[in-house]
Amino acid sequence: MTTKNFFTVFYLLSPPPGVPPEVFAQNVAEEQTVELPHESIPDRHFETCIVGTVDSITAAKGGAFRVAIRYRNDIAVCSIPQFLNTLFGNISLQNGIKIVGLELPEHCMTAFSGPRRGIDGIRQLLGIYRRPLLSTALKPLGLSCTELAQIAGACARGGIDIIKDDHGINNQHFHPFEERLGRVTEAIAAANASTGGTTLYFPNICGPFEEIESQVHFALRNGIRGILIAPQLVGFDMMHYLAEKYGVMIMAHPSFSGTLFSSPSHGIAPSIFLGTIFRLFGADISIFPSWGGRFAFSRRECAAIAAALTCDLPLRRAFPAPAGGMRLERFDEVAAVYGEETVLLVGGNLLGRSSDHCTSTALFMETIRGRFGEERRQPEEPRGSSCECLPRVERNAAVDDLLRFDDFNWKNRRRTEYKPGEATGFSGVKRIELFGRSGTKTAFDLRYFEIEKGGYSSFEKHLHEHVIIGVRGSGVLFKNGGRLALRPHDIAYIGPFEPHQLRNEHETPFGFYCIVDHNRDWPVSCAPRADYP
Amino acid sequence: MTTKNFFTVFYLLSPPPGVPPEVFAQNVAEEQTVELPHESIPDRHFETCIVGTVDSITAAKGGAFRVAIRYRNDIAVCSIPQFLNTLFGNISLQNGIKIVGLELPEHCMTAFSGPRRGIDGIRQLLGIYRRPLLSTALKPLGLSCTELAQIAGACARGGIDIIKDDHGINNQHFHPFEERLGRVTEAIAAANASTGGTTLYFPNICGPFEEIESQVHFALRNGIRGILIAPQLVGFDMMHYLAEKYGVMIMAHPSFSGTLFSSPSHGIAPSIFLGTIFRLFGADISIFPSWGGRFAFSRRECAAIAAALTCDLPLRRAFPAPAGGMRLERFDEVAAVYGEETVLLVGGNLLGRSSDHCTSTALFMETIRGRFGEERRQPEEPRGSSCECLPRVERNAAVDDLLRFDDFNWKNRRRTEYKPGEATGFSGVKRIELFGRSGTKTAFDLRYFEIEKGGYSSFEKHLHEHVIIGVRGSGVLFKNGGRLALRPHDIAYIGPFEPHQLRNEHETPFGFYCIVDHNRDWPVSCAPRADYP
Repeated sequence: MTTKNFFTVFYLLSPPPGVPPEVFAQNVAEEQTVELPHESIPDRHFETCIVGTVDSITAAKGGAFRVAIRYRNDIAVCSIPQFLNTLFGNISLQNGIKIVGLELPEHCMTAFSGPRRGIDGIRQLLGIYRRPLLSTALKPLGLSCTELAQIAGACARGGIDIIKDDHGINNQHFHPFEERLGRVTEAIAAANASTGGTTLYFPNICGPFEEIESQVHFALRNGIRGILIAPQLVGFDMMHYLAEKYGVMIMAHPSFSGTLFSSPSHGIAPSIFLGTIFRLFGADISIFPSWGGRFAFSRRECAAIAAALTCDLPLRRAFPAPAGGMRLERFDEVAAVYGEETVLLVGGNLLGRSSDHCTSTALFMETIRGRFGEERRQPEEPRGSSCECLPRVERNAAVDDLLRFDDFNWKNRRRTEYKPGEATGFSGVKRIELFGRSGTKTAFDLRYFEIEKGGYSSFEKHLHEHVIIGVRGSGVLFKNGGRLALRPHDIAYIGPFEPHQLRNEHETPFGFYCIVDHNRDWPVSCAPRADYP
Repeated sequence: MTTKNFFTVFYLLSPPPGVPPEVFAQNVAEEQTVELPHESIPDRHFETCIVGTVDSITAAKGGAFRVAIRYRNDIAVCSIPQFLNTLFGNISLQNGIKIVGLELPEHCMTAFSGPRRGIDGIRQLLGIYRRPLLSTALKPLGLSCTELAQIAGACARGGIDIIKDDHGINNQHFHPFEERLGRVTEAIAAANASTGGTTLYFPNICGPFEEIESQVHFALRNGIRGILIAPQLVGFDMMHYLAEKYGVMIMAHPSFSGTLFSSPSHGIAPSIFLGTIFRLFGADISIFPSWGGRFAFSRRECAAIAAALTCDLPLRRAFPAPAGGMRLERFDEVAAVYGEETVLLVGGNLLGRSSDHCTSTALFMETIRGRFGEERRQPEEPRGSSCECLPRVERNAAVDDLLRFDDFNWKNRRRTEYKPGEATGFSGVKRIELFGRSGTKTAFDLRYFEIEKGGYSSFEKHLHEHVIIGVRGSGVLFKNGGRLALRPHDIAYIGPFEPHQLRNEHETPFGFYCIVDHNRDWPVSCAPRADYP
């Protein structure tokens, strides 16, 4: 196996007293893969590196050790949940284990795909370059949709780049998802139209599981290009799935992830989780609490997150979005660390500054432009194709609930008559496909056949079986050299490769249901009917 | 607003130096709801309690404070992600905040629904009472499907109650999901057939998002009744959704949740997260690392988790499944704490004890029975509904060519009447298996049902679809909250997971054909018929 078959996780390990670092490191490698006592692990599991391989151990500060463990891609890169599980599944329940680095071969990174638009793509949509973007959150929870839309409209008129929902706002009855999205989009569109701006809106997607896709459908139909999502609340794979399936941009929120960072000796470094991993799994923008606000990250940690989101990798660059107590007074200090490739997420300090959100926003924008200037280019034209953002056709197309019977016809079903002139080995047979070819997923098809006076079906055989139920009149089933009379509700069976034919030897129509496997083989014609008695 | 409109979260708060506990508590209440600087919060948000309300602050050990904060249900109980977000979303990123208690009004608990079967339901399936259950994990990762099936078969022959996949085993190429599930189920079924046992198998569901449901479908069609799932990896709402939609039992795994517990002053107490919350969101069995093994929980914390899973609440009780270094030598110590209502999850110490897993298992079972004894009752007949899955009869038996109709009976077919005394949710239903269970190899079964005056079928739902053809009399199909009248030769369709019931509201018998896939999933009972119009 070459190095391409492996990825490497770098841990800072703090072994318990008396446990040598080699033993502790080996325990991690085994716990995260085979999860068996050392002596029970088959030799071949070491030889083939199914067990993680401890590649290096070096002393670090405070009695800790920096350890590199190499894992086979094929045990982990198959899915996002399993990747996280291999990184930090069971060992999250131990202590003294901190992930501080992650190295993936290029083809593994691209397997997870990363941001769909990233920094460059978002700038193309906005037409804005060479300065940080400004963003705010619609809040507080509990306002009406109209009030939230007013805030959105005012901020958009003030020239804000991105508006997102507060992550606690979703489908509560104060501001139901669809109404809120409709009103807010309208307010922003009106502001954009009046100012020539390009403000984008990222609604929060956080419903019950069954509602999330319909929320995304609704958003797409309303011209939304990006969504806010908290992957620790709704699932990383859900975030990745929505980005891939619908091509929406992702603004990822760190809600519920904080305990990964709170211990210096256990968890995952913020730069790895909110930086590398969020970027890997598709975040175009990653929100994190900046230093100096009301959360606990240090300036150095924040700079490391930004670096992980923007560093050179075979993935698009993602925007760092420092948040959490960002104040206008701190702008210079903040700008010095993050530079121009950042989305400054200002909530309370913008909304709380004055009741005139347009003026507050304009003040922030002025400050940003004062320091960075701005370059504007024609924003990317939203695509106009008929295929754009169309939701996938549901496998569950509408199926008729009921086919009402009406004199041997059924509503919504067409009766097909085979042309008697054609030399196809049958005559006077009509057919109606009842169920199985129109949106159902049954393993069977139900059809109705009717044979007129003197008519007959093909004389044939096949692997698939028939079950036939008499419905009207009376007919004859020829099979295996015998004849069986069929009257209403008589039920006949035709086995695999039994040559068979149905005939009507009476004056009135002979009708029957025929049930067959949905997936079935082609019939093989048999000798002419004349062979039959 | 009454107390019913609120739920209460109990936090252990450790304010930073110089911050009074009242201020710190109020910050938490605001951060978790409106997320605005105190001075920017509209007055009416306090008056209407949109902002969380600090109800009490009492001094606790080590300079900490026990604080009760009351939140409105309607900001949080609308979805699982938003509930977790309100509990511990943004504040997870701060420090000194630990959730140590949770009180929900009854209607909120039942909104999340809790375990579908729980302790009592699992025991009914197994027919085993008055002793702890024994469980093991199929491992290690990297064995072939055949090897894993051999282990499963041996443990089942040894009398184990539950076998689960190791949580790192999913769809890797060593052991692809479908092949593994097929071989393991077969091995366990063969063992059960030879010993008369009832061993259950919980496969690990952890694919990429798009594959998870098809994995569940495959599992259901193969008779699986429960799955292993790690909610922090695949999402809590996904776990809840699968349990609700498919009626599968949930064995929940704590992978990736460990940092919630690692600090004594920040995070969520294990008993709340792995106990109350896992139970609330639908875990029938909650796995957690027991004390004395290779993980960090104390004996007291473990006992508290078990208590939270089994205490008296308006939710079914869930099984605690202590794991992680459980050894036979520790059995007495472990049994003394957990008692009989527990699933002992023994991995390495069972599989590694000897290469003869049957004997190892038998030794554990003997130890368990030696201490607790055992009570066996007839296991619950899994078929309790009018849509039930009957075991397939001999596929190669001679097949009747023709079932002659005789006054709504058919030659060679027995009419089965369900005993009206049994409280199985249906009444006055007769049934005749026409084709599909008697030597044919069709992908479908054809049955005739007859419902007497006033009778009704089970109110249920399932993945497999129904096609129904009216034969005699007239009846009503209730589905999706609507009613459809059915007369002879009307043909009705029931889609995947559409709750449905058939009733006869007339004097004369209502007869119909019902066509279903031969391989199909188990029906899930729905709410009582009385809910219907």
